[in-house]
Amino acid sequence: MEAVTSPQQESNGPIIRGCQWLKSLPNKFCDKTTEIARRTKKLGQDDPRRIVHSLKVGLAITLVSLFYYFKPLYDGFGNSAMWAVLTVVVVLEFSVGATLGKGLNRMLATLVAAALGFGAHRLATLSGRKGEPILVATFVFIIAGITTFMRFFPKVKARYDYGMMIFLLTFCLVSVSGYRDDQVLEMAHERFSTILVGSCASLIVCICVCPVWIGEDLHKSVAANIAKLANFLQAFGDEYFKESEESNENNKSYLQGYRTVLTSKSSEETMVNFARWEPGHGPFGYRHPWKMYLKVGNLTRDCAYKVEALNSYLNSKIQAPAEIRGKIQVPCKRVSVECSLALKEMASTFRKMVLTRSAVMHIENSKKAAEELKSLLKTSLWEEADLLEMIPAASVASLLLEIIGCIEKISEAVNELGKAASFRKINATVLPEQQDSIQQDSNNTAIVPVPHCVIVVAE
Amino acid sequence: MEAVTSPQQESNGPIIRGCQWLKSLPNKFCDKTTEIARRTKKLGQDDPRRIVHSLKVGLAITLVSLFYYFKPLYDGFGNSAMWAVLTVVVVLEFSVGATLGKGLNRMLATLVAAALGFGAHRLATLSGRKGEPILVATFVFIIAGITTFMRFFPKVKARYDYGMMIFLLTFCLVSVSGYRDDQVLEMAHERFSTILVGSCASLIVCICVCPVWIGEDLHKSVAANIAKLANFLQAFGDEYFKESEESNENNKSYLQGYRTVLTSKSSEETMVNFARWEPGHGPFGYRHPWKMYLKVGNLTRDCAYKVEALNSYLNSKIQAPAEIRGKIQVPCKRVSVECSLALKEMASTFRKMVLTRSAVMHIENSKKAAEELKSLLKTSLWEEADLLEMIPAASVASLLLEIIGCIEKISEAVNELGKAASFRKINATVLPEQQDSIQQDSNNTAIVPVPHCVIVVAE
Repeated sequence: MEAVTSPQQESNGPIIRGCQWLKSLPNKFCDKTTEIARRTKKLGQDDPRRIVHSLKVGLAITLVSLFYYFKPLYDGFGNSAMWAVLTVVVVLEFSVGATLGKGLNRMLATLVAAALGFGAHRLATLSGRKGEPILVATFVFIIAGITTFMRFFPKVKARYDYGMMIFLLTFCLVSVSGYRDDQVLEMAHERFSTILVGSCASLIVCICVCPVWIGEDLHKSVAANIAKLANFLQAFGDEYFKESEESNENNKSYLQGYRTVLTSKSSEETMVNFARWEPGHGPFGYRHPWKMYLKVGNLTRDCAYKVEALNSYLNSKIQAPAEIRGKIQVPCKRVSVECSLALKEMASTFRKMVLTRSAVMHIENSKKAAEELKSLLKTSLWEEADLLEMIPAASVASLLLEIIGCIEKISEAVNELGKAASFRKINATVLPEQQDSIQQDSNNTAIVPVPHCVIVVAE
Repeated sequence: MEAVTSPQQESNGPIIRGCQWLKSLPNKFCDKTTEIARRTKKLGQDDPRRIVHSLKVGLAITLVSLFYYFKPLYDGFGNSAMWAVLTVVVVLEFSVGATLGKGLNRMLATLVAAALGFGAHRLATLSGRKGEPILVATFVFIIAGITTFMRFFPKVKARYDYGMMIFLLTFCLVSVSGYRDDQVLEMAHERFSTILVGSCASLIVCICVCPVWIGEDLHKSVAANIAKLANFLQAFGDEYFKESEESNENNKSYLQGYRTVLTSKSSEETMVNFARWEPGHGPFGYRHPWKMYLKVGNLTRDCAYKVEALNSYLNSKIQAPAEIRGKIQVPCKRVSVECSLALKEMASTFRKMVLTRSAVMHIENSKKAAEELKSLLKTSLWEEADLLEMIPAASVASLLLEIIGCIEKISEAVNELGKAASFRKINATVLPEQQDSIQQDSNNTAIVPVPHCVIVVAE
């Protein structure tokens, strides 16, 4: 409504605006609601296990609450039976590893703290009515200080942070409340047994109803990160040496996927810490070498940094002219594609927990292509060219050569991990025609299937 | 003891070994203790605020415990007064931001959940004796499911994760326990007031006794990250173009410092989330643009990825011959040093919250040097050289040129942040002789002081 306003209307301005704001309120509310609904749906679709987990938490808490209704349990635990419900709320996490870690931390810390708290209480009562509060306060101060400081140790923080907190909490609960109540021992016992019930209920629901093994997630995520680098390298050749300006939309998403690898360190570390709590399950045996995943992850990230440098040449303002790029196009593309195939092989076999040297073949191929590239760079082909114009192309070539080294290191680390985790051993030789079919493969899946191989089971 | 052993001795092997193990036990114990003591000392020395924090936790818990001894308080709160002690254990964190975030989350969540739980309880009692447990269980199931799912929203997870947990916990506590006890309202009130006391005690101790402002830490850490890149670039020129093999130990540590920048993303995000809870303090006013620190951090990391690529040429097996490197030495070193100076200026003025364009001058200088480098690369100087040998040197030159672009972006982001946070405005013009003195400066401090400037305060 862009009508000319009279002074009368102008003075009514705030009121009119207020009315308009009020009128737009339902619309805004609708928009907001739709937005939230859309996000909720996306969150559920991205990982349906989130919905399952929410239902699991509801189930576990309801079960323990119902338990609480039963007379015998009530008589046994008294009011502190609520601790069982609270334990479920606090302990039941998304993954089995996290739940087990928290549950064990909570149980062990409670047991030790209850014993220590009881001891402190006894010692304090021995010192008479006047000395008691002073002694208890001193104990609490010392234990609180030490426990808090211990939480700063990186190793303690990674695995026992929650336990430390619960230890301090229970210690205070038992030793301080004891001043008013002679039934300290009973209280300590009650607290421990209710926490035991709550933790066990959480663990049973967590493991028995659609369990989420964080170790499996870690395994998949490390494989997926390797595959993301492969996707970049697969698309890179075509994108860098393309002649026209328009680019494949599909390529664009491939070219950006690797960026999440750059910042994956902290989430990987968290996953390793949780995975170490998990018992053997499925293909992941007892004492699975979870810590070695960190090494593979670090090497993948080192490679991702190089890929990031490569990516900057795609969008750089300073570009080598097409004719110069054209000269190194063939071997560069080959290095890039062979590197991509090697990484895809690795990702795929690693994911399937198969020990094979099939990636090595692609690495060898990429090295051959690298030699070609080097000899091409050595020839006097370049003499008429302007060095400044050549630099970006030369840098790309140099980065590709370095990426081969990175991939070799990843391959070794993956192999080492495979041996330590006793992956199945397979001697794979890919037939040449199948190899061609993989090279031309450009499907959308993050990880290409392992090619049909002439498989000889070695062990 | 490598004596020849008789069969008799051999059969005694396990016993002897057992004895030796037992003998070595005290030594091992001593070693372990010394090791732990050494680490503890280092942890305290690295950040003495850790020791202060431990004492603060001890103090706060002891204070609240002593409160608990007082008869009036005990009469007022009853047994649930222990919640006050527990709240301190759980809420009192290292930084003010984290403590405030947790405290406010806990208080608000308890208030809302207590009200809602009371409502659920009333609704359930209306449905009669038989319907009550069913209705309560249904409510608990629904609320638990929804709350758990909401914790998956990234925004909720970042700021209200703890609140969500406490909400669920209190809701269960109030609605479920209500089944046995008619004093639900009293209980809800008790729980809220004890948590209020505990949270306030934590906040008072946290803010009044040597407060740790996480916003300040974030500010310093972003500045330090920029300074780390500057240190690398300062040392890089000498290291790359050095003629002899031996290298400066000092340089080595400079050259590795930037690596922590690569993986600083998650810690920066955590700090921003905590800092947003903090009230205005010192130079950080109300509504300080904490989120803009993320942008500066991201650009710094982008630059660090380039520095990582540069670093790989330091340790690469394929090295350009010294004579080729020698040809580009002068302009390359100048670009590197000017970039380093620009970053140091930025880090220093940013840290001091001063808005100055003095870094721009160094960026301009580095651009001039870059032009020199480019024209050098254009000349026919290279014709006799082998291109393959030249590539590493050319790549280094190209990376240095790109780093200039990165630094410009950081400078813009820092400037933007400075304007939004209303840093002091200063027009600085560095005198030429002072500029020389900075160039030759190679002291050990991470951040060089801002040079004495001809300062004209503009606003």
